[in-house]
Amino acid sequence: MLHRIVGVTVRDVRFPTSSEQHGSDAMHSDPDYSAAYVVIDTDCGLKGFGLTFTLGKGTEIVVCAVEALAALVVGKSLQEIVNDFRGFYRLLTSDSQMRWLGPEKGVIHLATAAVLNAVWDLWAKAVGKVRALIVSCIDFRYITDVLTEEEALDMLEKAQEGKQQREEQMLKQGYPAYTTSCAWIGYSDQQLQQLCTDALKSGWTKFKVKVGADVEDDKRRCRLIRQMIGPNNTLMIDANQRWDVAEAIRWVSNLAEFKPLWIEEPTSPDDILGHAAISKALAPLGIGVATGEQCHNRVMFKQFLQASALQFVQIDSCRLGSVNENLAVLLMAHKFKVPVCPHAGGVGLCELVQHLILFDFICVSASLHNRMCEYVDHLHEHFASPVVIQDAHYMPPKDPGFSCEMLESSVKRHQFPEGEVWKMHK
Amino acid sequence: MLHRIVGVTVRDVRFPTSSEQHGSDAMHSDPDYSAAYVVIDTDCGLKGFGLTFTLGKGTEIVVCAVEALAALVVGKSLQEIVNDFRGFYRLLTSDSQMRWLGPEKGVIHLATAAVLNAVWDLWAKAVGKVRALIVSCIDFRYITDVLTEEEALDMLEKAQEGKQQREEQMLKQGYPAYTTSCAWIGYSDQQLQQLCTDALKSGWTKFKVKVGADVEDDKRRCRLIRQMIGPNNTLMIDANQRWDVAEAIRWVSNLAEFKPLWIEEPTSPDDILGHAAISKALAPLGIGVATGEQCHNRVMFKQFLQASALQFVQIDSCRLGSVNENLAVLLMAHKFKVPVCPHAGGVGLCELVQHLILFDFICVSASLHNRMCEYVDHLHEHFASPVVIQDAHYMPPKDPGFSCEMLESSVKRHQFPEGEVWKMHK
Repeated sequence: MLHRIVGVTVRDVRFPTSSEQHGSDAMHSDPDYSAAYVVIDTDCGLKGFGLTFTLGKGTEIVVCAVEALAALVVGKSLQEIVNDFRGFYRLLTSDSQMRWLGPEKGVIHLATAAVLNAVWDLWAKAVGKVRALIVSCIDFRYITDVLTEEEALDMLEKAQEGKQQREEQMLKQGYPAYTTSCAWIGYSDQQLQQLCTDALKSGWTKFKVKVGADVEDDKRRCRLIRQMIGPNNTLMIDANQRWDVAEAIRWVSNLAEFKPLWIEEPTSPDDILGHAAISKALAPLGIGVATGEQCHNRVMFKQFLQASALQFVQIDSCRLGSVNENLAVLLMAHKFKVPVCPHAGGVGLCELVQHLILFDFICVSASLHNRMCEYVDHLHEHFASPVVIQDAHYMPPKDPGFSCEMLESSVKRHQFPEGEVWKMHK
Repeated sequence: MLHRIVGVTVRDVRFPTSSEQHGSDAMHSDPDYSAAYVVIDTDCGLKGFGLTFTLGKGTEIVVCAVEALAALVVGKSLQEIVNDFRGFYRLLTSDSQMRWLGPEKGVIHLATAAVLNAVWDLWAKAVGKVRALIVSCIDFRYITDVLTEEEALDMLEKAQEGKQQREEQMLKQGYPAYTTSCAWIGYSDQQLQQLCTDALKSGWTKFKVKVGADVEDDKRRCRLIRQMIGPNNTLMIDANQRWDVAEAIRWVSNLAEFKPLWIEEPTSPDDILGHAAISKALAPLGIGVATGEQCHNRVMFKQFLQASALQFVQIDSCRLGSVNENLAVLLMAHKFKVPVCPHAGGVGLCELVQHLILFDFICVSASLHNRMCEYVDHLHEHFASPVVIQDAHYMPPKDPGFSCEMLESSVKRHQFPEGEVWKMHK
C-alpha cells in the first residue's frame, strides 16, 4: 500500500498549567503547556499523529507554519517519502522561499518537527516496526566536517554487537529516568518537600531543581533537596538561560556545595563559546554543563560538541527536525563520547523522546553511563498510549507508532480558544 | 505629546520577482521579494511604518507573529517605550510564553524587527531627529562577556571626535555602495554583460556575483565580470550557504584567480566554527569571509567575532531586532576592528539599512576602510522616500523617519493573495 497523504490538519491545543505553576522556571514564569497538534490523513484510512511543544501564546503562529508546510506534504505517498526521506527532509527545510524564515530554526523548524513526527508515526503504524536504513533519513548537509555518511554507517555497524541483549535489558528494566516534577521554581518549600518525599517513595533517585531567579532561594531549595535525597542520589540544577557567562560561573560556584551533576542552560542557547567557557570554569568543581532543549538544529549541536561546550546532550524531539535530525545528533554525540540525556516533559515530549533514547542505547551508544531521560509527571492522561514509568525507568512502549496520539476528547476540550477549558478560563 | 499607540496593522505584501529571476542565487532559485508590512497608529494621528523582508511563501506566518506581538504594543505610549527602550525590547523578545518559539530567532524575531522598525520610524517622525542615549536602547543580556554598557559608553564617547566633519562628508559624498544587481544566478551571460556595462557607466566600482551552483559556471561568470571591471575594481562572491566546510574551501580556492575580496555565506549561517575554519584556510589566498544576513541575533554575531570567523560583518535591518540589536552588533564589530558591510536589497532593506551604516560611520567606527553597503536596484519605486544613489554612494536620507513607508497604492496592488498583481498571476 502506498498510503497517499490526502490531508494534514493542525490544531492549537493548550493546557492551563500556569494556574498551578507547573513548569515554572527562572525565565518562564507562567507557561501554559501547549502543542501544535498534527494529524495526517491517508487514502487508506490510516492516520499519523505528530506534535510540537509550545508554551501557550504564539502556538497559533506554529499552526500557521504547519499549514504552510502542509502544501509540500499533501499528495505525497508514505512510500515515496520514506524511499527518499533525506530528500523529503530537505524539501521541508530548504524550500527556496520559506527557508528565509529559519533556516532550520524557530517557528518554521518547530512546525517541520510536528509534521515529520506525524510522518514517522504514520510510517511506524503502516509497517508495525520501522526497519530503515538509518543514514538515508539523515541530511548530512553542514555536518560532514564532523560526521560523514560512511562514518555513520560504520558506527551503526559496530553497534550491532550486543544489540539483542540490550533490547532484552530494556524490555526488562526500562531506561533510567530523572524527575523534574518536584522542584519547579514557583512551588513552595512545603510543596517541594511533599513531592520529594513522594518521589523517593516511588523509587526516584535523580532530581532536578530549577534555579536562577534568586541565589539565596536557590541555596535554600538545593539544601532542602540535598538533605532529603541524601549524598548518594543525584541532583541537577537548571537555570533556563537566566545568566550571562561570568554570572553563570559565579552563581553556580555558589551552589557547588550541593554537588549538582550538571548545570543546565546556564546562558543563551545560542552561545556555544559561552557554554565552552562555563564548562571549562566549572570542570574543576566537578559540575558539567547540559543544554539542548532550545538548541535549534544539528549545526548548533555539532559546534557544541566541537567546542567541548557541553558534557550532557539534551536532545528534544520537537525542537530538532524530528527523528531525522535527532539521529544525526545521536551519532555526533556518540562520536564525541558525550552522553545524551533528552529533554522531556511538556506535552508529549516524554512519549516521543522515549523512542529516541531507546534507539540511542540499543543501536548507537550501547551505554547507560551518565545517561538518563527527563521525566515530568503532567498531562500524560491526555495521550492514547502514555509513557509507562516503573521504578523510575521508562518502560519500552508496546503500541506501534510514535506515541503522541492524543485523546480526541482532550484535544476538543483544550483547543484554543474555542475549547471548553478555555471558555471557562475567560 | 505621548503618542499613545492605538493600533498595529500588518499586511502580507509580495512582489512577483521570481518571474524574472531577480534575487536568484544558489539556494533561493525563485524568490518573490516580500514583506510583512507594519503600520502603527497613534491617538494623535502620527503613524509609524516598519517591515521585515521575506521571500514570498510563508510571509503569512510572519504576519501571524506580528499580530501576536501587537498585543504587547497596543496601549503603550511612544514616550513610555523610548523611556525604557531596553525594557520594551526585552518585553517583545522575552515574553514568558512566546520566547519558546525563538528565542530571538526565526519567525518571531523577524516579526519583532518589523514591529520595532515601525516604532523607530514613529519615534523619528515624532521628534524630527532621534537624540537617544544609545546604550539605553541595547539589551546587553548575553553579550557582557564581550561588551559591557560602560565599554559601549566609552566607545561612543571616543567617537565624538570628528563627528561633525564626518556628518558633512556624508552629506556631500554619501556612503560607498556596491551592487548586486548585475549578477543574479538566474541571469544569462548576455544579461550579466549588459547590466555590468550599464553599472560601470553609472560609476559602480564594486560588484557582487552569485556563485555556488556549478563551479564551471562560476568560473565563466567570474571571468566575464573580472574582465569587464578590470583588475582595480572590486569583485565579491556570494554562495548563499550552499556548501559544507571542506567543500567551501575547495570551491573558493578554485575561484581565487578572480581575486574576490570576500566569499559571502559559504556555509550554514549557524556554523560559527565552520566559518572560522574557512576564514583560516582562505586567509593565505587573500579572500575574506563575509556573513550575517541570516545571522539571527547579537549572541551569534558575538561568537563570529570572538572566533575570528568573519572578516566582514553583514548586519541586516530586519533579521536582527531592529536598530536596538544592530547597535549592539555595530559596537561589537568596532571593538573587534571588523568592518561592517550591511546586507541590503530585498524590499526596503536599502531604505532601512542606510540609517544604520551612516550611524556606524558618524558615531562608531569613523572609518570607511574596507566598508561599503550593498545596493540592489529593485522595488525602490514602491517607497515614499526611496534611497538616493549618486555615483555609487548612498546619499543621506532627508525625510524624517526610518524610510520604509510604502506607497499605499503599491501595498494594495501587491497584497497577497487579494491584490491585483496576484489575482492576475493566478
